[in-house]
Amino acid sequence: MNCSIPTTDFARILAALRSQSPLVHNITNYVVMNNSANALLAIGASPVMAHWKEEMEEMVAIAGALVINIGTLDSEWIEGMIAAGIAAHHRGTPIVLDPVGAGATSQRTEAAWRIIRECHPTIIRGNGSEIMALVKADVKSKGVDSSASSHSALESAKELALTAGCVVVISGEVDYITDGHTTYTVEGGHPIMTSVTGMGCTASALVGACAAVEPNPMVAATAAMAIMSLAGEKAATVARGNGSMQMAFLDELYNLRAELYTK
Amino acid sequence: MNCSIPTTDFARILAALRSQSPLVHNITNYVVMNNSANALLAIGASPVMAHWKEEMEEMVAIAGALVINIGTLDSEWIEGMIAAGIAAHHRGTPIVLDPVGAGATSQRTEAAWRIIRECHPTIIRGNGSEIMALVKADVKSKGVDSSASSHSALESAKELALTAGCVVVISGEVDYITDGHTTYTVEGGHPIMTSVTGMGCTASALVGACAAVEPNPMVAATAAMAIMSLAGEKAATVARGNGSMQMAFLDELYNLRAELYTK
Amino acid sequence: MNCSIPTTDFARILAALRSQSPLVHNITNYVVMNNSANALLAIGASPVMAHWKEEMEEMVAIAGALVINIGTLDSEWIEGMIAAGIAAHHRGTPIVLDPVGAGATSQRTEAAWRIIRECHPTIIRGNGSEIMALVKADVKSKGVDSSASSHSALESAKELALTAGCVVVISGEVDYITDGHTTYTVEGGHPIMTSVTGMGCTASALVGACAAVEPNPMVAATAAMAIMSLAGEKAATVARGNGSMQMAFLDELYNLRAELYTK
Repeated sequence: MNCSIPTTDFARILAALRSQSPLVHNITNYVVMNNSANALLAIGASPVMAHWKEEMEEMVAIAGALVINIGTLDSEWIEGMIAAGIAAHHRGTPIVLDPVGAGATSQRTEAAWRIIRECHPTIIRGNGSEIMALVKADVKSKGVDSSASSHSALESAKELALTAGCVVVISGEVDYITDGHTTYTVEGGHPIMTSVTGMGCTASALVGACAAVEPNPMVAATAAMAIMSLAGEKAATVARGNGSMQMAFLDELYNLRAELYTK
Repeated sequence: MNCSIPTTDFARILAALRSQSPLVHNITNYVVMNNSANALLAIGASPVMAHWKEEMEEMVAIAGALVINIGTLDSEWIEGMIAAGIAAHHRGTPIVLDPVGAGATSQRTEAAWRIIRECHPTIIRGNGSEIMALVKADVKSKGVDSSASSHSALESAKELALTAGCVVVISGEVDYITDGHTTYTVEGGHPIMTSVTGMGCTASALVGACAAVEPNPMVAATAAMAIMSLAGEKAATVARGNGSMQMAFLDELYNLRAELYTK
Repeated sequence: MNCSIPTTDFARILAALRSQSPLVHNITNYVVMNNSANALLAIGASPVMAHWKEEMEEMVAIAGALVINIGTLDSEWIEGMIAAGIAAHHRGTPIVLDPVGAGATSQRTEAAWRIIRECHPTIIRGNGSEIMALVKADVKSKGVDSSASSHSALESAKELALTAGCVVVISGEVDYITDGHTTYTVEGGHPIMTSVTGMGCTASALVGACAAVEPNPMVAATAAMAIMSLAGEKAATVARGNGSMQMAFLDELYNLRAELYTK
């Protein structure tokens, strides 16, 4: 794994996660809830999954970060997301938006934009297709998997970062993290990660955790993507298929701390 | 594993899945979403889980197959299922219905029949109890697990196939695949598969994937059940319990291609 | 593992689970549905996850126990929980309530109390924070993870047991099971269990299974917590992180029977 920030940065962030154990409030999709929660626990954060509009204000009030993921969307959940996002924005709590499947249907693209406009996310993380769809770049969408390389979406990411006033992360073979002016990269990971459902969603959850303890969103997002890459590379060495990859990835996340400290 | 179609058939279908990577649109239950998505990725398909009525028409438009599973049903989801099913039927997109728990409550039986009448599924896959319940055969239902052998449900399956005008699959010790006139079988698998939640739902998802690339629903369904059996047999040799069985099953699905090609 | 009831008690209960395979009806959260279902299958029970208000009466009618878990709550699900709980209470079917996140938001605390008042649960199982929050003890809540030791919640548990007229279980380093007069304990398990999401929810599901075959709720709950501890201790010896811990825990549950019989 190679990335634009020194290893000491994400070792420091990981140490902060373990010592502060921030509550990360996730409004995420049904497919990944279990894995996202376990990934957050693995790196020392405290996950909560909650979407009921009525309790959003109180839940956000005790959270260190809010992660909004539109993977299995419907009207009622959108209202919960908006309520939570507005509350988080008012409190200055960092918000991560994962626009899963933006471009696959117009409803998803519009829901993502409504969240951007009303909640002002700190960081948006998506794959190449999703980021391109958000700026109406010419891209053929295919459900929730990307049909575009992360590099081909870089200009779209910069445009989105400037328009939305946030940091944008594109994951892919190379991850790009940009605020429209500066761009960081993370190279690493392993192709088998694309055969495990919800790896991108897990990345968004970890971005949220890092943003809860690191005020610079460029550094927080890069650290999270670097942690994903590192754990993915290590897990891939023991995985026999996507089943064991999903499990080994959590184990490697869980064990990452020691290694980073000894570097 | 023994089945009524030659190995070359499902090797061909598996190759088509890997080369075409069809989008399989699932409206399925909360219990199995993660595993169904991973099983679809393992065999090369591209899964999307989406249930919001508003986006059903657009999502179905980019899908190669639609899988409707009523495992954790409620009124709102039924409307999403019906909207997706009608759209898929109009487009000629293959539809797989998994009537989870039919017979356990009258609401489930009725919901399954409403989907059959309004959406005209291409293939229905259930366990013995569920298939018998759909034709009001005398069967004592017990939740979502079968209380009837697959063989005892064969006449019900034939009746259902003729009434509903589709292919019916009963999974069990022996899987039966019938259009009411011809019946194919798949023998194999392993008893521990019944201790892993959602194995039937995974089978339905794979039937959907196969139907996306194989126009003959009898062949598509038989291939999917054969793939399930093969992967299950192989996974059972390394499983220590139902936890490792669930993981090993995905790994074996992921690794199935090589073996089938060398046969 | 040490506990207040003889090993023969939970060997007997486990044998009853395998021979009767009771249907355990779960209305539980999205995060844990897969693992709770697999845990129930591992010990021989038959899980069903169903929340639709319309089918609650019929589903409860065929169930041996009802488990209500408020982990990912919303208004519609509360109505399903209440309908199921009232039906179960009228039938004399044991009800387990898991007040996930009680105290984290006032909506959760109120929902838990509404369920207690209207459904009269047989057993309430929570962590220290949740139990203390239910009796308005002075405790700082932090999402769904406990910020209080199980011991510090014991007086609250006794008070809750007497007020609600049920058995209360606090899980933690030591598990306490109390009806307000008598208190049983289970010591054991392993700290890594707190890094696996939904272990408490799995405990509640197993309490439900045991209550379906054992009429004494103090014994049923203690047996379930002892089974959790035993499987957790054994799984921890092979786990490399929280991913493999989650898997190994199911395997150990699955294999528990033999060992208990030979003791």
